[in-house]
Amino acid sequence: MSNPSILILPGDGIGPEVMAQVTRIIDWYGEKRDLAFDVSTDLVGGAAYDAHGVPLHDDTMAKAMEVDAVLLGAVGGPKYDNLDFSVKPERGLLRLRKEMDLFSNLRPAQCFDALADFSSLKKDLVAGLDIMIVRELTSGVYFGEPRGIFNEGNERVGINTQRYTESEIERAARSAFELAMVRSKKLCSMEKANVMESGILWREVVNRVAADYPEVELSHMYADNGAMQLVRAPKQFDVIVTDNLFGDILSDCAAMLTGSLGMLPSASLGAPMDNGRPRAMYEPVHGSAPDITGQAKANPIACILSFAMALRYSFAEGAEADRLEAAVEAVLADGVRTADLLGEEGVTPVSTSEMGDAILAAL
Amino acid sequence: MSNPSILILPGDGIGPEVMAQVTRIIDWYGEKRDLAFDVSTDLVGGAAYDAHGVPLHDDTMAKAMEVDAVLLGAVGGPKYDNLDFSVKPERGLLRLRKEMDLFSNLRPAQCFDALADFSSLKKDLVAGLDIMIVRELTSGVYFGEPRGIFNEGNERVGINTQRYTESEIERAARSAFELAMVRSKKLCSMEKANVMESGILWREVVNRVAADYPEVELSHMYADNGAMQLVRAPKQFDVIVTDNLFGDILSDCAAMLTGSLGMLPSASLGAPMDNGRPRAMYEPVHGSAPDITGQAKANPIACILSFAMALRYSFAEGAEADRLEAAVEAVLADGVRTADLLGEEGVTPVSTSEMGDAILAAL
Ligand SMILES: CC(C)[C@H](C(=O)O)[C@@H](O)C(=O)O
Ligand SMILES: CC(C)[C@H](C(=O)O)[C@@H](O)C(=O)O
Repeated sequence: MSNPSILILPGDGIGPEVMAQVTRIIDWYGEKRDLAFDVSTDLVGGAAYDAHGVPLHDDTMAKAMEVDAVLLGAVGGPKYDNLDFSVKPERGLLRLRKEMDLFSNLRPAQCFDALADFSSLKKDLVAGLDIMIVRELTSGVYFGEPRGIFNEGNERVGINTQRYTESEIERAARSAFELAMVRSKKLCSMEKANVMESGILWREVVNRVAADYPEVELSHMYADNGAMQLVRAPKQFDVIVTDNLFGDILSDCAAMLTGSLGMLPSASLGAPMDNGRPRAMYEPVHGSAPDITGQAKANPIACILSFAMALRYSFAEGAEADRLEAAVEAVLADGVRTADLLGEEGVTPVSTSEMGDAILAAL
Repeated sequence: MSNPSILILPGDGIGPEVMAQVTRIIDWYGEKRDLAFDVSTDLVGGAAYDAHGVPLHDDTMAKAMEVDAVLLGAVGGPKYDNLDFSVKPERGLLRLRKEMDLFSNLRPAQCFDALADFSSLKKDLVAGLDIMIVRELTSGVYFGEPRGIFNEGNERVGINTQRYTESEIERAARSAFELAMVRSKKLCSMEKANVMESGILWREVVNRVAADYPEVELSHMYADNGAMQLVRAPKQFDVIVTDNLFGDILSDCAAMLTGSLGMLPSASLGAPMDNGRPRAMYEPVHGSAPDITGQAKANPIACILSFAMALRYSFAEGAEADRLEAAVEAVLADGVRTADLLGEEGVTPVSTSEMGDAILAAL
């Protein structure tokens, strides 16, 4: 039987730096846990644009459709800010999401005990925080047509379309209910049903799916109130489900609450492939961080924990995911810190690869 | 010469309770400061629906177009949750905004010294915080067509349209630059130009308007990063300008950061009328708070400070606005607190009208 396959797309900025540490972890699993992966690597984002003039080459897209899981670093950077919209680094990422049909984006916002002091919130409000945001990732205003900048009379108008079908809402909602079932059975759905018809349909479909999950306590919240409540008392939430654009903003807000931005992974999941595994891409929540690129300062943990999510969701290796997460927690408890996590007394920063060393040692 | 005119629309929930205190303040100005207003009162939201079957009667709309300023309390409540979209309480508010063409919504997020402990953020991050969010209020996804729930194949699809013309962006941007000029000359514009073409046009027009304000230091931020930065380090901002939907979420997020939600006013301004005054509506940022309605617990300060904004922006009575704001600060410094502001030792809550008494006494 052949090994499960992984396509690594390090991307731009600190992407390659953090991904280098993930590669070491992957190798460790092959050598020490008899869990070998067939790993290939390719370009995405600005790196792909530099090589091919497009942020994702068709060959890379084809490879992504063939592997068991994609690991992505980060895309974008000031160098590419003035590119035409159609070839911006982000389009590479969005094409992967869309063509792989990764409709369910899981974004944990978790506050690590050792790092609770880093939150801008008072410690008691965030200590132990563990929220899962499920963001619909393949529809809504990100992909709706018509879109563009058009002439109208003697001026231009910028148009985007928020658009959700019942089945798009349903599959995202279902994945959120499934997660709620294995967590605390509490789900909050967020939209602007008081202002947007797409939000009304969203709420209606979520209510309908709820009938299949009678054990889950479902609530609804307007997205503006959701942002408030996240800031006021984040621990009131367990699983949150919301659309692509609200999910973009609310999950970043929630991530920042934890104070652990360099620590947070994500999984983007689609329908099962022929082999039963979901189509999947894993990436850290943080971006390409051009300000610290090339300085060996980046924190590789978010990317490493993204690989832990891959172990759990793509490879049914929950125990191995636990092992990796425990190694990260142990390293943090030991006081090992990259530069983004400094501020406490008596702590010396380690480099990106030294953090990798420490995690390998803890494994 | 006739007195300036004000239309009061108390609305639903705690709206009438807090507005009752504003009326007392208005009377005080007539009696003690020789600043009399012609005040009329009418219905909006659920209250209008109960009386007329619509959330805003045409006669009320006509009155709103005739007066110098509208003061609105709050709209909505669980009683109206299942009404048809077209007659929901919110539609009354949105109709006022649209027909009065109130394109510039000013939402200060200010942390009152006496209340800095109420923020969920660490005190040093919010003490002295004073941000002004300028939200475009009459366009974008709130009003764009097509919109609705349509049949498509064998399912339904919910559609809303984000839509901005150059002139709509320009006038909102201009009002933000004007505000920046009288504040710290720092403006941050937020959109998702990396994903939405309407955001690209937004950024382009803001950059063009910037040429008329060379003294203002302009920056751009993606809205998801904006939410993060507001939570991480809100004091980095002074004036923020953004669209209707992002403004809805980001301003609520910013408001909650201050811990002073019951304290925050807003002004919605349009073009100048024949008398030179801008078309204007003033309302507290908080909602109708059905959970505390009828219990004399509501904090009237947000609504009173909304009237202070009316004094400043509609009636060119900046000194009187300062006087009213100073009275509020004095009362807070004295430890007078409504129930929403409790938590400290040795403080006894006052009722809504007792807070009104205290502010009148301080005036
Ligand atoms: C890079 C950008 C296109 C992307 C998004 O808006 O979805 C990012 O912000 C994210 O949340 O993954
Ligand atoms: C009540 C609602 C329609 C409104 C909005 O979404 O604009 C409110 O949230 C606000 O921010 O004033």
